[in-house]
Amino acid sequence: MSHRNYAIVGTGALGGFYGARLQKAGFEVHFLLRSDYDRVKKHGLIIESPEGDFTLPQVRAYRDANKMLKCDVVILALKTTQNHCLPKVLPPLLKDNSVVLVLQNGLDTEPEVAKIVGDDRVIGGLCFLCSYKVSPGHICHLDYGTITLGEYARDYQPTGITNRMHQIARDFKHAGIPIKMSEDLLLSRWKKLVWNIPYNALSVILDARTDELMANPDTLALVEEIMAEVIAGAKSCDRIISNDFIETMLERTHKMKPYRTSMKIDYDESRPLEVDAILGNPLRIAQKAGIQLPQISVLYRMLKFMDAQKQEAERTRRLLTVDS
Amino acid sequence: MSHRNYAIVGTGALGGFYGARLQKAGFEVHFLLRSDYDRVKKHGLIIESPEGDFTLPQVRAYRDANKMLKCDVVILALKTTQNHCLPKVLPPLLKDNSVVLVLQNGLDTEPEVAKIVGDDRVIGGLCFLCSYKVSPGHICHLDYGTITLGEYARDYQPTGITNRMHQIARDFKHAGIPIKMSEDLLLSRWKKLVWNIPYNALSVILDARTDELMANPDTLALVEEIMAEVIAGAKSCDRIISNDFIETMLERTHKMKPYRTSMKIDYDESRPLEVDAILGNPLRIAQKAGIQLPQISVLYRMLKFMDAQKQEAERTRRLLTVDS
Repeated sequence: MSHRNYAIVGTGALGGFYGARLQKAGFEVHFLLRSDYDRVKKHGLIIESPEGDFTLPQVRAYRDANKMLKCDVVILALKTTQNHCLPKVLPPLLKDNSVVLVLQNGLDTEPEVAKIVGDDRVIGGLCFLCSYKVSPGHICHLDYGTITLGEYARDYQPTGITNRMHQIARDFKHAGIPIKMSEDLLLSRWKKLVWNIPYNALSVILDARTDELMANPDTLALVEEIMAEVIAGAKSCDRIISNDFIETMLERTHKMKPYRTSMKIDYDESRPLEVDAILGNPLRIAQKAGIQLPQISVLYRMLKFMDAQKQEAERTRRLLTVDS
Repeated sequence: MSHRNYAIVGTGALGGFYGARLQKAGFEVHFLLRSDYDRVKKHGLIIESPEGDFTLPQVRAYRDANKMLKCDVVILALKTTQNHCLPKVLPPLLKDNSVVLVLQNGLDTEPEVAKIVGDDRVIGGLCFLCSYKVSPGHICHLDYGTITLGEYARDYQPTGITNRMHQIARDFKHAGIPIKMSEDLLLSRWKKLVWNIPYNALSVILDARTDELMANPDTLALVEEIMAEVIAGAKSCDRIISNDFIETMLERTHKMKPYRTSMKIDYDESRPLEVDAILGNPLRIAQKAGIQLPQISVLYRMLKFMDAQKQEAERTRRLLTVDS
């Protein structure tokens, strides 16, 4: 086993789950937290999982990045809506040869991180995980868990599979986390969007589960049309995804249990939506290449409206709670 | 004053209002009703209006078209979602020189009526009216009321302003109903859709009033983009609407009181939505001419889904109400 140590930036349903699995496997893991700090510092982490429940009564918890040890691998597991914190949070955690593993949704976050830490120390990771936070430090893992790793290089140039990817993959596999490798991070990110854009957006806008979207002929057709637009977006970046991939995604979704998407969970819990990472950035990238994605643009604008209305209501609710 | 008599098919917030105004002005009016028949037969119609409240204690009410007198002008004021009834309802009401005045929303209902009654006896009417039904036979008029008349000819060929239009206009004006005349019914219908498609659709999908849609920069941009698509749809029918018309519509909406659209009222009251008349038919007509309207297509499919979900919930609710 390696002696690489890990920092988890964002100890929620995703970061908390993977961090806990790494610590349980014997790795030194440092957890950065904000609102959940007190609870996790005192009681550690509780993981429920079909692969076995476990508790870590003690974890290395921090609420200030400046007081953390510099780590070999910094796992970025914040929601992208928190990325304005990164210029403050990331630099204190990095040694010369540290690498940042971006386990975030959507597109164009690796270049954002690279601007802060340098082009040569960013790896992307695409998570296929169903988990949610029951309460601070208490995470319920429902299903799946595979991470697809892909090394980042400037402008998302394909890198093939690097040594560093192999090293991290070994650690994760040792911790029981299934790993796939991608030779082309940008292609993988676009492929993930083929699923993520239609289902995340429509589940929020139409207040619907995946099975309801699949059962209605109009939303099923809409999902297909939007998937085709995502493929057109990928093509604007010279990434070719076959149209057969749409059929594969639809079949997979038909077989899935009824599923509440991550954006729908965020919306239901009044958290800001990752609209820009998942829809806005792909739209803008395609637009720069001269390609319009009119249907995704509709979804984007609707979600921006819903997000703004929800956050406004949330602010009002908090004010009223404080007043009363 | 003319001796033309009138039939009102669909005595709701719109048909009831115009019919009552005509009767109050001295015209002979026959009202066809379904669920509200008993109440209206017994108690007549009550109209509340900023232009003056009035009651008609006795009206000629019918629940069977076959028992009605044949009328000079048959005013079709049903929701388009009820148009499957027309082949049964319309023929018994018609004399040789009767004309059907279609006061319905959306596009392509005049040809449907013409198939039943003949191309040469259909006039279209576009209503700009805010009113709602308080209870059976009790209608509250809020604002506006103008009708734009346009004669229908096969394939919506422009007809100019006909004698028949003048006659009906005179009667309506006599009843205090403001009338405009259109030389090209299809152009008028498309122009109305420039407002109706974005606001009706977005108010339902986003659960929003017009003022909320105008205040948010993303929905405002979306409204503009959709209006531009409606203009492209009109162009596919060789009807040219200037892009300045978008600015005119936006300004008018900015000045309006916060407004719940007719589709939003239908949705909130669990009535079927006029999705096909307002969005589906324009989409299909443009598509036949080889023009895609991708953003309107998104709205259409979303509304079809929401309508199906709502009607399914409504069926379940009714079953439960009967059982308990």
